[in-house]
Amino acid sequence: MAFHKDHPLPGSRPGTLVIPEGSPPPKIHLVRYAADRVESVPVAHPDEIPAMLRSDEVTWVDVQGFGDEEVLRTLARIFGLSPLALEDAVNAPQRAKSEPYDGYQLVISRVPQLDDEGVIRTPQVCFVIGPRFLLTFQKDRLGLFEPVRERLRSGIGPIRESGPDYLAYALIDTMVDLYYPIVESLSQKLDDLEDDVLDEMSPGSLGEIHQLRRQLVILRRIGWPQREMVSALVRERSPFLSDTVRNYLRDTQDHMAQIAELIDSTRDLATGLSDVFVSNLGHRTNEIMKVLTLMASIFIPLTFLAGIYGMNFEYMPELRERWGYFLVLGVMVLVALGMVLYFRRRGWMGSPPGGRKPRRRPGS
Amino acid sequence: MAFHKDHPLPGSRPGTLVIPEGSPPPKIHLVRYAADRVESVPVAHPDEIPAMLRSDEVTWVDVQGFGDEEVLRTLARIFGLSPLALEDAVNAPQRAKSEPYDGYQLVISRVPQLDDEGVIRTPQVCFVIGPRFLLTFQKDRLGLFEPVRERLRSGIGPIRESGPDYLAYALIDTMVDLYYPIVESLSQKLDDLEDDVLDEMSPGSLGEIHQLRRQLVILRRIGWPQREMVSALVRERSPFLSDTVRNYLRDTQDHMAQIAELIDSTRDLATGLSDVFVSNLGHRTNEIMKVLTLMASIFIPLTFLAGIYGMNFEYMPELRERWGYFLVLGVMVLVALGMVLYFRRRGWMGSPPGGRKPRRRPGS
Amino acid sequence: MAFHKDHPLPGSRPGTLVIPEGSPPPKIHLVRYAADRVESVPVAHPDEIPAMLRSDEVTWVDVQGFGDEEVLRTLARIFGLSPLALEDAVNAPQRAKSEPYDGYQLVISRVPQLDDEGVIRTPQVCFVIGPRFLLTFQKDRLGLFEPVRERLRSGIGPIRESGPDYLAYALIDTMVDLYYPIVESLSQKLDDLEDDVLDEMSPGSLGEIHQLRRQLVILRRIGWPQREMVSALVRERSPFLSDTVRNYLRDTQDHMAQIAELIDSTRDLATGLSDVFVSNLGHRTNEIMKVLTLMASIFIPLTFLAGIYGMNFEYMPELRERWGYFLVLGVMVLVALGMVLYFRRRGWMGSPPGGRKPRRRPGS
Amino acid sequence: MAFHKDHPLPGSRPGTLVIPEGSPPPKIHLVRYAADRVESVPVAHPDEIPAMLRSDEVTWVDVQGFGDEEVLRTLARIFGLSPLALEDAVNAPQRAKSEPYDGYQLVISRVPQLDDEGVIRTPQVCFVIGPRFLLTFQKDRLGLFEPVRERLRSGIGPIRESGPDYLAYALIDTMVDLYYPIVESLSQKLDDLEDDVLDEMSPGSLGEIHQLRRQLVILRRIGWPQREMVSALVRERSPFLSDTVRNYLRDTQDHMAQIAELIDSTRDLATGLSDVFVSNLGHRTNEIMKVLTLMASIFIPLTFLAGIYGMNFEYMPELRERWGYFLVLGVMVLVALGMVLYFRRRGWMGSPPGGRKPRRRPGS
Amino acid sequence: MAFHKDHPLPGSRPGTLVIPEGSPPPKIHLVRYAADRVESVPVAHPDEIPAMLRSDEVTWVDVQGFGDEEVLRTLARIFGLSPLALEDAVNAPQRAKSEPYDGYQLVISRVPQLDDEGVIRTPQVCFVIGPRFLLTFQKDRLGLFEPVRERLRSGIGPIRESGPDYLAYALIDTMVDLYYPIVESLSQKLDDLEDDVLDEMSPGSLGEIHQLRRQLVILRRIGWPQREMVSALVRERSPFLSDTVRNYLRDTQDHMAQIAELIDSTRDLATGLSDVFVSNLGHRTNEIMKVLTLMASIFIPLTFLAGIYGMNFEYMPELRERWGYFLVLGVMVLVALGMVLYFRRRGWMGSPPGGRKPRRRPGS
Repeated sequence: MAFHKDHPLPGSRPGTLVIPEGSPPPKIHLVRYAADRVESVPVAHPDEIPAMLRSDEVTWVDVQGFGDEEVLRTLARIFGLSPLALEDAVNAPQRAKSEPYDGYQLVISRVPQLDDEGVIRTPQVCFVIGPRFLLTFQKDRLGLFEPVRERLRSGIGPIRESGPDYLAYALIDTMVDLYYPIVESLSQKLDDLEDDVLDEMSPGSLGEIHQLRRQLVILRRIGWPQREMVSALVRERSPFLSDTVRNYLRDTQDHMAQIAELIDSTRDLATGLSDVFVSNLGHRTNEIMKVLTLMASIFIPLTFLAGIYGMNFEYMPELRERWGYFLVLGVMVLVALGMVLYFRRRGWMGSPPGGRKPRRRPGS
Repeated sequence: MAFHKDHPLPGSRPGTLVIPEGSPPPKIHLVRYAADRVESVPVAHPDEIPAMLRSDEVTWVDVQGFGDEEVLRTLARIFGLSPLALEDAVNAPQRAKSEPYDGYQLVISRVPQLDDEGVIRTPQVCFVIGPRFLLTFQKDRLGLFEPVRERLRSGIGPIRESGPDYLAYALIDTMVDLYYPIVESLSQKLDDLEDDVLDEMSPGSLGEIHQLRRQLVILRRIGWPQREMVSALVRERSPFLSDTVRNYLRDTQDHMAQIAELIDSTRDLATGLSDVFVSNLGHRTNEIMKVLTLMASIFIPLTFLAGIYGMNFEYMPELRERWGYFLVLGVMVLVALGMVLYFRRRGWMGSPPGGRKPRRRPGS
Repeated sequence: MAFHKDHPLPGSRPGTLVIPEGSPPPKIHLVRYAADRVESVPVAHPDEIPAMLRSDEVTWVDVQGFGDEEVLRTLARIFGLSPLALEDAVNAPQRAKSEPYDGYQLVISRVPQLDDEGVIRTPQVCFVIGPRFLLTFQKDRLGLFEPVRERLRSGIGPIRESGPDYLAYALIDTMVDLYYPIVESLSQKLDDLEDDVLDEMSPGSLGEIHQLRRQLVILRRIGWPQREMVSALVRERSPFLSDTVRNYLRDTQDHMAQIAELIDSTRDLATGLSDVFVSNLGHRTNEIMKVLTLMASIFIPLTFLAGIYGMNFEYMPELRERWGYFLVLGVMVLVALGMVLYFRRRGWMGSPPGGRKPRRRPGS
Repeated sequence: MAFHKDHPLPGSRPGTLVIPEGSPPPKIHLVRYAADRVESVPVAHPDEIPAMLRSDEVTWVDVQGFGDEEVLRTLARIFGLSPLALEDAVNAPQRAKSEPYDGYQLVISRVPQLDDEGVIRTPQVCFVIGPRFLLTFQKDRLGLFEPVRERLRSGIGPIRESGPDYLAYALIDTMVDLYYPIVESLSQKLDDLEDDVLDEMSPGSLGEIHQLRRQLVILRRIGWPQREMVSALVRERSPFLSDTVRNYLRDTQDHMAQIAELIDSTRDLATGLSDVFVSNLGHRTNEIMKVLTLMASIFIPLTFLAGIYGMNFEYMPELRERWGYFLVLGVMVLVALGMVLYFRRRGWMGSPPGGRKPRRRPGS
Repeated sequence: MAFHKDHPLPGSRPGTLVIPEGSPPPKIHLVRYAADRVESVPVAHPDEIPAMLRSDEVTWVDVQGFGDEEVLRTLARIFGLSPLALEDAVNAPQRAKSEPYDGYQLVISRVPQLDDEGVIRTPQVCFVIGPRFLLTFQKDRLGLFEPVRERLRSGIGPIRESGPDYLAYALIDTMVDLYYPIVESLSQKLDDLEDDVLDEMSPGSLGEIHQLRRQLVILRRIGWPQREMVSALVRERSPFLSDTVRNYLRDTQDHMAQIAELIDSTRDLATGLSDVFVSNLGHRTNEIMKVLTLMASIFIPLTFLAGIYGMNFEYMPELRERWGYFLVLGVMVLVALGMVLYFRRRGWMGSPPGGRKPRRRPGS
């Protein structure tokens, strides 16, 4: 699928939101919690939110769908979001990034998702980390935050004792972990293609290798900025991130580095496999050519010989001899043998049909 | 189109302007505005300008066309431009850049434009940002500043309350936003070519892939310095740029980074598609060779056999036998079957005409 | 083998351990030593360990197998390991890295191992270097620490007089040294393949070159982070590493740099060899084509000539002439000679069968 | 032309000059000037120079040809040049560089020149910038300083009011400007080759593309160090360069950066064009193969059929039938039609002779 | 030749020396000198050395061959060498490097040597630069220090007045200068291959291009660390190197940078030449195919036509006509002309035999 961004018309005011026709209206989800309690509160309209904020609780407001600009602007006003920050949250896709603002830290994180047809989608989530609140903006309901919601509800681990920075970390870490199954499935796919290319060369492999390379290019395009974003979170000392959380993020950073390297080395292998495909094709053309050349070189001269004695000249002395026919047959056998010997000497005959099969390739 | 720069003869004095024969004379456009008013003043000759400047207004002087050196030099004198700065403005193309001068900040920005024949033009605009004025130099009238002019006229947003730095930001941001439609159209074009290459392999695709790669190389050549230029504006603390504007530019910087990465990943995909084209070609040659080899290998030996019994030897015992003809026909059938079996065993027969069609490739 | 990591489900708490079904239970091995003594103590359960620690001895606890989470958590509690550190130790593979923690330095080191089928395995060892203790975690018993154990037992060299940092250095250095035989064997393999490709072009070479490139990609993926890890140990001034040990590590760093460069230059050569293979294939196809074209071009016209005089027209004056047959034979010889001359002039005939053999290639 | 450097025998003393047999003797050219005067003084022997130096004038000594070591050493003694600096000036080619010395700044600058046969020569000029003097060393008379000499004579611009640093800047800037025509001509050449490759594929194109890539590699080899050299002049605060001149050099630096990027993007395009050439070749082979396969597949079976009824068996019932001949002709037509249909269905027939012509490629 | 390093078994103590079976015993060569004298003293056993050291002289001890560990360890003891330093000196090859130690500076330098069979050997020399002594370790007698010895003996230049740092510089500079002839010979070789590939395409060229690329990969592997090593010597302020010598080394650094760039651009050209070879091969296959297709397409239909009238049907009316034979001959000529016209129109006929020869390629 070609790249498309919901960007405003060139020359628009900064902060212009682009909301495609027919976008679903925002669903707002508010969770507030402290060490000893957690409460999920339905929000019909953002105007209700200010009354729900309590200073001794952490508030998490999750917005899904951007279909109503008014609602989004109200939310921004309540939490002090600048128009530029709101633009980053709504006009997707943005590069993954971490940016300090007055009063909050803005983080854009992207996650890969393989749909049923093998198309990689790369939705983004925008995090606004404040002193006692966390806002998250998603265009479509992705369902990827369920496990963290469950952890909040059950209260296991430090999640409820910690601030909104830990919650943001938990969500970002979840998103980073979602890269692993994708990369592993592409790595597995490459393995399967490798078996196919080395053994059978089915004609569709070429398209599939290209598809794989395409998926890896897209993964790379979102993965490297994601890596930078996590590193920036670790490196820069945002006042909205505690040292503890920064320590946890160091781990996320390692994972993202490993993922980025995996993407690159898988890309290398996929490129190599393309080369093998082409070489193998060349090898097969070669094999076919050999057979053609062999058949043609043996039988075309013989046919010529037969043609000579098929001529209707009245005076062709050999035709009258009793041994003529058998002599010619003998000469034909000799010529054929000669050709076969010549081809054997050049190494164009005698290799087994399927070629020597390469040993299994090694893995990581 | 080959690269061409309007550069002076080697050894010329610094500041020499190169004005091609037949350049249109400069049209000067002056707009002055404050929070509560905006006025567009026609300028016949630059000498009129000093009288138009007011200290409580921001003045924007837009110069289109460089056909009269005298006029340009007069302008430079009025606003205190150094000859080198004027050279940068006039002798296009320059690399995109941001350079501090005494009394103003010089910015060169370039924008891609696809003309009707698919040729990418990359005109430049030179910005001179002073304390209360903004100069812009364009070689040809590009029309890309219309939306910003409209914002000035309508007075919506902070544009009239801000200084010339905000105006410059609005114009540069507009130019950066103009990269998106180009990159998206190239990305779409790549998608179409991909469908074509995987399905039909129409003979013109190769030229079109090359054209696409060429366009991407040119985009890259202007896009990366543009990215650097915007980053330099954000990073360096020019006295002519307020912190607010620098904050806005951070957003432009993100966009330019995203564009640069898109250009590079599209380039990667285009290169990959070239490879697929070549491989596919090899695959087709292979298929054609198989048919040729098959036909030749089956019928050439048979023709030889027929040739033998077409010889006119007087003594060929088989010819007299009643069963001779039918026996030979039988042998021919056996030979043909043998060849078919051999080719089947090597896997050179029996694949469906068009090959297995690859699944749709995934998108971003 | 496709990449697989024992990573927890996305959204799990940090510190979640992933222990695959059927993992063997941990075997714990404790060695404590001082300059004048060394003692190997069997450990049935980690709870026994605290009683074994003595302040005047260095204690090395080696854990092999992660089959029992309870045991691992107990160990972590005894030595003050954070859950994240334990996760790094257990959820393999991690990137090689060196990370400071309160109370210890965590090091992840990876080592390549070629199994019998040429598959590269890259197990990891996790080191926890404390002030008076060293923990090592291995998933499977690798046996690679035997030589160091032997040095401990024999007491030769400074190993028993030094702290746990020297022991860790000795083990890491051993792991780095294990890269050499692998790289050398791949380099040797490349040499063999080169001979084959330049001389015989056996059909399996292509798969073997691909296998080699694959092995090198994997080596690179673990080798470069390993290089970074050793450099970080040298560069960062961890309180758990003495200057002496850091000096020793500088040497390990040189070795790892040499290995990384070797991997890259071998990769270069392997890529080059792929190109040679493809070119050589093209050259062979060329040779085959020449023979085919030669045979076809000579005999097809002659067969046509014979065919003409095989026609059964009643009025064909030449057929009645006594010299007709011999004239036609003469014309045939002339045509054949003409073709041969033409092919000689174009340089398509007369090259010796196997081509000029290239000189031996030079080595490092 | 292979790389050749006039380097001394390994193990020679530093400062050894290498003067090839038959080098022309040095011609020394002295110009001294102040704001209100300029004088060109002939120099027969360097010993005359000290008497010509005046403290209120800038002296420019230009040395062309290195055929007499004695003369060069005398010059070095007069201006206090170290033997190493003299070696850099004489033993060409050196990398472009800028190096501070006690009492002067040494600059090596290189310039590309296309000779009539398309060979790129890259002569070097060595600048020694002192407080009141400028030395320039050229191996052969290049004539590239004429325009600057003219500016000195006419006294237009700041050249006579400024010090030797401005003179050096003017000369270096001239050399940098000389890169533009070369790069533009290579870019134009690439355009021509592109038209040829996409339309006609004349057989010499391949060699010309290679020649172009070779020229670009050489340009790159001298261009990048040249870029570094100019940047170093701007960045480092040499006491022999005033701030004004450093400001001018910033412009030269932009030009050199633009040139370096142009070289690289032209290189990219040339590589891409090589790929197009190869693909196009593959496409043509394909086309040729199709025709061959078509002809062979249609006529070989028909010839076989004709061959059957050319056999001389006594008992072939069909031969006696009145309709036999016409039936066989009919079967032949059917077989031919069947083959044609089959080829049409596979898409191997029916494409117009020259293929769809690609649209014009876009330019910069 | 595959990479091989004399490395100890993994797990060995640091400082373990690896001395291959049959290594020649060390020959020790001592030279001591001051400004006014130089003396070469034979050394039978290192124990004699302490008595030979004089504080007013510089002592150079050159060790050739490592066949006796005892001797080497004694030497190390006398000059205070650490076991790690001795390991670096003996277990070759090491990466080129410069490392500070207490009491001396350790430098590893490598030099390329082309043997008679075109194999590149890359022996190393280890320098230990002390305050008044210089140790050099070479595995085999290389003879490359002769010119410097000669300079010592003759006393020309500053060599006898300077310390061991100048001597080390002179030797390292000699080694760097030895890169030039190698690079130049490879550059010349590339030129010859280029002529061959563009003109004759002799079959061995492919192997020779590969050999050249291999040599360049090896040169690169040793050249880049060598460049780093020299740069480190210039950059780091070792107490054992005077400022004067560091100034001299700046020159060596320039040379090494030039060499490294030459290696890389030659590599680029060699890769390009491989591509040309492959394209040229494709072009030739194309040419051959054209001839084949032409011959087959013209004569196969004609043969079929002749075959028809060679059939023995009793009722074939044309056969009885007097004009039948000549009519068929006429039709054959028309068919042949039609094919020729078709091929001319497609541009497959009429190109001159050898193709347009490309112009000479340009040089540096």
